[in-house]
Amino acid sequence: MDYYSNQISKLIEELSRLPGIGSKSASRLAFHLIHMKEEDVKRLANTMIEAKENVKYCKECYTLTDQELCPICRNAARDHKTIMVVEHTRDLAAYEKTDKYNGVYHVLHGAISPMLGIGPEDIKLKELIKRLEKDIDEVIIATNSSLEGETTAMYISKLIKPIGVKVSRIASGVPVGGDLEYIDEVTLLRALEGRTTL
Amino acid sequence: MDYYSNQISKLIEELSRLPGIGSKSASRLAFHLIHMKEEDVKRLANTMIEAKENVKYCKECYTLTDQELCPICRNAARDHKTIMVVEHTRDLAAYEKTDKYNGVYHVLHGAISPMLGIGPEDIKLKELIKRLEKDIDEVIIATNSSLEGETTAMYISKLIKPIGVKVSRIASGVPVGGDLEYIDEVTLLRALEGRTTL
Repeated sequence: MDYYSNQISKLIEELSRLPGIGSKSASRLAFHLIHMKEEDVKRLANTMIEAKENVKYCKECYTLTDQELCPICRNAARDHKTIMVVEHTRDLAAYEKTDKYNGVYHVLHGAISPMLGIGPEDIKLKELIKRLEKDIDEVIIATNSSLEGETTAMYISKLIKPIGVKVSRIASGVPVGGDLEYIDEVTLLRALEGRTTL
Repeated sequence: MDYYSNQISKLIEELSRLPGIGSKSASRLAFHLIHMKEEDVKRLANTMIEAKENVKYCKECYTLTDQELCPICRNAARDHKTIMVVEHTRDLAAYEKTDKYNGVYHVLHGAISPMLGIGPEDIKLKELIKRLEKDIDEVIIATNSSLEGETTAMYISKLIKPIGVKVSRIASGVPVGGDLEYIDEVTLLRALEGRTTL
């Protein structure tokens, strides 16, 4: 790319390493950044560095936070005896947006995947078991509905049941507003299996 | 977004201001950045700041560069009497990738758009006219094939013709490999009008 100057080529290259950003988006972003106000670019750059430097795991639920305990774990109004287990902080965010779940969370930071060589010891699983030493009513497993998510859910439930804590799994089925015609067969079968009496 | 910590929310907000990045991509990017190595985040951030600080317009063709003159204007092997006029630096890059154009460029940084209130004085047009004081053989107008691009092309050609410099416009038509069935009518008509004798 010698028709760009070095600095532009370098920026495009750096940006194209980010997930979901191909070389076209990277050049578009690069030119946008160059046309932005200098103070705005500096603010974005510093926000990135600060977030990287200060964000760590909540020592209770392992979500990403910039304090010892995340806002949810610190909140006394939440039900600390119900733990929803999710794969990533963004899954926690998805449930928080519903505004209906009042328990706390546990973020695994991944799912068991023999294919990718990710075992139970690579995710925050022993940290979850440790939390069960306290008085816990229910563990709701909300890992993704993928092969890895299901494997992880099975593994966790087998691990927890002997401890005597109630374990549940969020339902899978047809999404609300979903048109049966466009739903894959596995989901349709799952929805049938999980049918409830009206 | 009080379920994220302040630093994460701030980063997501900053990222979602970038073009083509919605709130979902912004959170995905934010979490990716937080999981990246600290040195990599710092390098990306610094590359952004450096590019913003050092990249300016080439004083000849107005493309973005980090030197007084861009690599193309500095290259004595190029034909400096043929100027291709493009809207943006990325359009210049597109033609450079063909490796077949040996002239130089002029980057307008926009196109005339009465709708958006962009007039001839808002793009690098008088800078182009100034370049014609030198001995120029041909000006090739390669603005986009959009309403704005066509308007700009018409405007420039009317401005340049009285000066006595040859002005041409790149062809519009069916893209190579394009299937007629999927091409819009305007393009089909344009291809018909622009037909050449075989």
